[in-house]
This record gives sequence, structure tokens and C-alpha cells, in this order.
Amino acid sequence: MSTEDETSATSDRPGLRRTARLEAFSDGVFAIAITLLVLDLAVPVTKTSENHLLDAIGDEWPGYLGYVVSFATVGALWLGHNAITDYLDRADTTLLRLNLLLLFFVSFLPFPTRLLSEYIRSDQAERVAVTFYGLTLLVAGALLSVFWRYALHARLVRPNAGDEEITLLTHRLTPGLAAYAVLIIVGLFRPVAAVIGYLVIAMFFLLPLRIHRR
Amino acid sequence: MSTEDETSATSDRPGLRRTARLEAFSDGVFAIAITLLVLDLAVPVTKTSENHLLDAIGDEWPGYLGYVVSFATVGALWLGHNAITDYLDRADTTLLRLNLLLLFFVSFLPFPTRLLSEYIRSDQAERVAVTFYGLTLLVAGALLSVFWRYALHARLVRPNAGDEEITLLTHRLTPGLAAYAVLIIVGLFRPVAAVIGYLVIAMFFLLPLRIHRR
Amino acid sequence: MSTEDETSATSDRPGLRRTARLEAFSDGVFAIAITLLVLDLAVPVTKTSENHLLDAIGDEWPGYLGYVVSFATVGALWLGHNAITDYLDRADTTLLRLNLLLLFFVSFLPFPTRLLSEYIRSDQAERVAVTFYGLTLLVAGALLSVFWRYALHARLVRPNAGDEEITLLTHRLTPGLAAYAVLIIVGLFRPVAAVIGYLVIAMFFLLPLRIHRR
Amino acid sequence: MSTEDETSATSDRPGLRRTARLEAFSDGVFAIAITLLVLDLAVPVTKTSENHLLDAIGDEWPGYLGYVVSFATVGALWLGHNAITDYLDRADTTLLRLNLLLLFFVSFLPFPTRLLSEYIRSDQAERVAVTFYGLTLLVAGALLSVFWRYALHARLVRPNAGDEEITLLTHRLTPGLAAYAVLIIVGLFRPVAAVIGYLVIAMFFLLPLRIHRR
Repeated sequence: MSTEDETSATSDRPGLRRTARLEAFSDGVFAIAITLLVLDLAVPVTKTSENHLLDAIGDEWPGYLGYVVSFATVGALWLGHNAITDYLDRADTTLLRLNLLLLFFVSFLPFPTRLLSEYIRSDQAERVAVTFYGLTLLVAGALLSVFWRYALHARLVRPNAGDEEITLLTHRLTPGLAAYAVLIIVGLFRPVAAVIGYLVIAMFFLLPLRIHRR
Repeated sequence: MSTEDETSATSDRPGLRRTARLEAFSDGVFAIAITLLVLDLAVPVTKTSENHLLDAIGDEWPGYLGYVVSFATVGALWLGHNAITDYLDRADTTLLRLNLLLLFFVSFLPFPTRLLSEYIRSDQAERVAVTFYGLTLLVAGALLSVFWRYALHARLVRPNAGDEEITLLTHRLTPGLAAYAVLIIVGLFRPVAAVIGYLVIAMFFLLPLRIHRR
Repeated sequence: MSTEDETSATSDRPGLRRTARLEAFSDGVFAIAITLLVLDLAVPVTKTSENHLLDAIGDEWPGYLGYVVSFATVGALWLGHNAITDYLDRADTTLLRLNLLLLFFVSFLPFPTRLLSEYIRSDQAERVAVTFYGLTLLVAGALLSVFWRYALHARLVRPNAGDEEITLLTHRLTPGLAAYAVLIIVGLFRPVAAVIGYLVIAMFFLLPLRIHRR
Repeated sequence: MSTEDETSATSDRPGLRRTARLEAFSDGVFAIAITLLVLDLAVPVTKTSENHLLDAIGDEWPGYLGYVVSFATVGALWLGHNAITDYLDRADTTLLRLNLLLLFFVSFLPFPTRLLSEYIRSDQAERVAVTFYGLTLLVAGALLSVFWRYALHARLVRPNAGDEEITLLTHRLTPGLAAYAVLIIVGLFRPVAAVIGYLVIAMFFLLPLRIHRR
């Protein structure tokens, strides 16, 4: 996990932690959260006929939509986390705590996903479920941005990282937050449209679009 | 997780990512997906007599068959993923995204496995369940092949890897796809035969057969 | 995971184990335990109206309280574990076994959390549930302290670690235990107050308070 | 995860795999299997009185016994696996496959544990459940021994490992197998005694007894 050199280097800077375990623990939580989502996919109960099973699977589409959106969002957050830690030289105790707070919302996501899948077809309750879901995505995205800005602020980023790369990453983490805020409002009137919007945001991060490139 | 040298080396090549976290995150998802399968094994409910419990366990065979096939397939995919990353020199952002797409289908597999276990004895619905299961295996296998071919195409493979080894790995990843396609057709007429065929494919990758050796 | 140098060094000291796998396995168990907690969050069942869903979510507050306290406690234990292994030079077989015992209580925590969520509003049974929960936290905290003290006693800590740092960490791990003991008594009379107290203890470790700083 | 040196070294020996991912994937499966056990601990359902909850928890003892025995056994298997990989210089493809087979039985263990917890108080069916449980432990233990013997046979062990250490580890892995075989027979007549025997075997590996020391 670490060479002797690294360990010795850390001991010269008390209070600073290696980034290795931050990454290993985070990878574990991201991997488990993304994989647990499948446990909430309901198997339709119908033993009558073949077409009925196809219909029954089709009827479960809100569950599958929530599954895909949450998987894509956790995947996008992991890519962002990965891009950030790639620039980290070291981690201090505040960064470890911000990371735990981010992981709290990542590992919490299966719960609003379940709420969403359960209530999205329910006329009255779907607005509550979709708003709750959107707020969780917004907070998780905001914490990833805070995580990165704190690392910059506390000079935990590798000195040899290019200014341009750093600006690019900062810009890349920001627009999603405004979009989440807009979609939470949209979701009060058009819940399904908001959920599809959340999928589009995740895809924006997942697909290697080069919008900011000059 | 990485030495200082590695980190510095990465910083000289912006946009390139280390393979360490790709492997760690993937290992996490593979390990969780393969271990979650056991949660869907149903404990037979019978409190009457000893022979009844043996009979009841025997009656649950479709669940156990799906469990074994899915475990063997995830194990085979992990071996293939392992073999590929062994040749990787570095990872770019497209490779990370292809990897996420592959992991999506790996972590999704418990769901068609549950469908299969539930419906394989059901006269009408088993064709739908077996076809859905086979399509998931085909897509996962195809994505592993795409993952490898992209790595070759984008020159992410270590320069000192032998051409012969690379050809061997490429050949090894291909025939399974044709077999999956054939078995999906077979499954429309003989569902159980198709599932046993999926087990044979996984075993072909798991057992150290040296068919291509000269 | 390890360089050749590290491996060779280990082979010269039979009976000593590398700390790499201790950390990897522990990170896995911590990450899984912290993420599994979300599975026990109950989705309220109400399809009547929007306000009813908000009310129903509100009614589930004991489940959410238990979830937050357990998440914060596992997070705090992980931070402490992380701080300790940061000072480890090597691990002997007794340390590996103490670690397994600690992980036993970490991975057991979802069970008393479920008991707590189920019974905290129940007039008669809540004292049993809260006491059981508190005892689990006390034992886990005590084992983390024993883990650290054993490492010091068996001279497994890096020789170049400063005495001041070591004393700070030892002091940091101790006061929580006395607080847990007090709160277990408090919980016999005011169960909810005790649970909030457990949250405060976890927050004390999670927030970067510098009480011991001169 | 690996330094450049390691990677280059591997490329000179085609067909050989690094042990890093073998360890990472195995740690993942061990960690998940050991942590999933807690999901099967039943929360007793009783809302009547405080004493009733204590009684109800007491009534669930077979579930807790199975949990403790399985946790201790997976912990002991992990320690053994850890001890073995500590001596590994490299891994070939057969070792990776033997490892997958071992992990199959490790990740399968929650199922017989559930059977055991469900049926141990059932007069007729407990013999089936206990025998099935014992056979799973025997096979897992035997595969760990095969894993080690194959590594020795295929000369995958570090050349500088002392003969005495190797003999000690070989001896340490063997007696458990005979004990498992005896206890499976005992379980046909005294099921609970066999389960307690399985706990003793796991404790024998977990506790740092130095029986073989001269």
C-alpha cells in the first residue's frame, strides 16, 4: 500500500495523512453504494404468461429509471473524486472529514432512490420523493465541489499540477450544481422531467465531452 | 497505493489517469457483485421432517443453478479484466468510462439472476427470463472485449508486451461472444440447456485450457 | 500493493506481517458496515397524499437517528483506526487478531442499530435496545484503544514517531470510553438523551477540535 | 497499487500474474462475506414488555451462535490466506483459479449459516442443516490447504522463505481438516456439540497458540 519512503515522509509532517487509505476507503464505499442499488430492483411477481412477465417488467420502469440515474450519478461522482485525488499531494484531517461527509451522502443515495422508485407513479407523493432525491444529489455534488476547493485552499494539491488543468477541473465541477437547483424547482411541476434531467447531468460528466477545451 | 515517482510521472501526462484506482474500484464492484449473489439464495421453509428439508433444498435447484452460473461468469469476467489490466501501462478518461459501463452490467447481473431463479420452472415466463439473462451476459462479455480493444487502439498497453501474448488474449475474449449469441437463440426453445451452456462458457474461461497454445 | 523491498524486509522478520493487507481488509469491512446501514432505512408505506408522505418520513425519525449515529460512529472509528495504522511500522499476529475482534464489533453494529430503530419508541423495550446499543459502542471504542496500546506495548510503532504525537493520540482515544460508560447509565432513565449523547461523542472525534493543543 | 519496477518485472515472465490484485479481490470478498452475515441476524418481534425483549433476544441464540461461528471461521480463513500470500513471490493462472474456488465457498457460507440458524432447533431437520454447514467448512478449509500446497508445488513461494516457517504453516493448515471430518460425524448425533466444535476449531486458528513451537 505504501513504500517505506512514503511512510517516513509522512512522519516528518505530523497531522498530515497519506492519501492511500482515503482512496481505498472511498473506493470501497463508492463500489458498495453503486452495487447495492441492484438489491432494490423488484422482481415482478407474475406467473401467468410470458407476455405478462414482459408487461410486468415494463410496469417496473420507475424502479429501473431510478436505478440507472443513481448508478450514473455515483459513477460520475466517483470519476470526479478520482480526478481530484489524482491531483492530491497529501491529505490533512479536515479533508478526511469532508470526505466522510461526502461518502455519507453517497452511501445514503440508495434510500432516496428507493423512495423515488416507490412513489414516482403516485399522484400526490411523487413531488416529495423527487424533491428529496434531487436535494440529495445537489448536496452530494456540492460536497464534491467543496472537497476540491478545500484541497486547493489548503494547498494539498501537487505543486507541479498545471494551473490550466486545475481551472478546468474547477469549472467542470460547478455547472452541475446550478442545473440540480433548477431541476429541483422543475421537479415540483414535472417530476419525471426532473429525474430525466438528473440522468442528463450525470451523463454530461460521464461522457468525455470537451466543452471547455479551447 | 502509489509511490511518489508514479504520481510525478502521471502529472507529466495531463488527462491520463493511474490504473491503480481503476483496479481498486473494479475489484470492489466485482467482489461485491459476486458476494451479493448469495443473498438471493432462498432458505426452503419446511419444519416437518429431515427428508423434507433435503427435498426442499433439492426443489430450489434453479436458484442454485443461477447462483453457480452467475458466480462463474463474474469470476471469469474478473479473470479477463485482471488479464487486461495486467497489460495496461496507463488509463485515459475514455477507458475509465468504458470500465464504468462494464461494471454497470457486472453489478446488474444479480437482478437477471433473480429473475432466472424465480421463473425458470414457470412454463410460460422462463423464456423471457432466460433471454434477458443471456442478453446481460452477452453485453457484459462484449464490453470486456471492447474495453481491451479500446486499450489496444489507444495505445494504453505496455510497450514491452509481446505481440503473441496480445493476440492470444484478443482471441481468448472473442469466441465466448458468438457462443452467447447462439445460446440466446437456443434458450428460446430449450431454456435450461441455454443456462447450462452459459455455465460451460464461464468454465471455458475459468479452467486453464491451453487451446491456442502451439 | 507492495514493492519488492518491502516483501524482502518482511521475510527477514518471521512472524511479522505487512500492514498493507490489515489496512485493505479493515477498509473493506469499515466501508461495507457503514454502507449496509442504509439497507435498514425503512421506506414509509403511504400512498394517500403528499403531506402524508412527509408525515410518514417524519414518523420514521428513530430509524434516521440510529442511522446517523451509527454512520458517525463507524466514521469516527475509521478515522481513529486510520490514525493508528499511520504510525504502524509493522503488524504481528496478535495485532491482526485484535483487529479482527475490533472488526467483529464494527460489522456487528448494524444489528443493534436495527434493534434501536425498531424499539426506541416502544415504552418498555427501549431501555434494553438503547443499553445493548451503548454496550456495543463501548466495546468497539475500548477495542480500538486496546489495539493502539498493544501496538505501543509490542513496539510495532515507527521508531521515528514523535512522543508528543503518540501521547496526543493516546489521550484522544480515552475520554470517549468514560463518556460511553456514563451514557449507558443515563440511557436507563433517558434513552433518547443517551442516543443523542452517542452522536455527540462521534462528532467530537469527527470534528477537528483541538482541545488538547497547548 | 504497483510500482513501475514490479510491472516491468512481470512482463518478463508471461503468464504470471501479480499477487496485488489477487489480494485486493480476495480481501474484498472476505470483507463482504464476513460483513453480510449480520444481515441475517433476526430482530426479535415483541412490543409487549422489556423482559419480553430480553427473552426474545435470548430465544434467537441459534442465529447468534451461527453468526459467531461463521464470523470466526471466515476470520480464521482470512488469517490463513493472509499468511500464505505473505510467502507468495508471484501467482500463476492456476493459483488465481484455485483462489476463485476458495472464494466461492467463502462467499457461499452465509447461506448454510442461514440454514443452520433456521433449523438448529428443529428436531428433525437440524441434522441436515448442521451436516451441510460442516461440509461447507470442510471444503473451504481443504481448499485453503490445496491453495498453499499448489503454491509450494509450483514454486510460487519466495525463494528466501525459511524451510522451517513453511513446514510450520503446512502443519498449521492440516489438523483442522481432520477435526472437521470428525465433527461432521459427531453432528449426526449431537448437532449443537458439532457447531460448538466448529467454533473451537476457528478459535484454535484465531488465538495465537504456539503448540508447534519447540
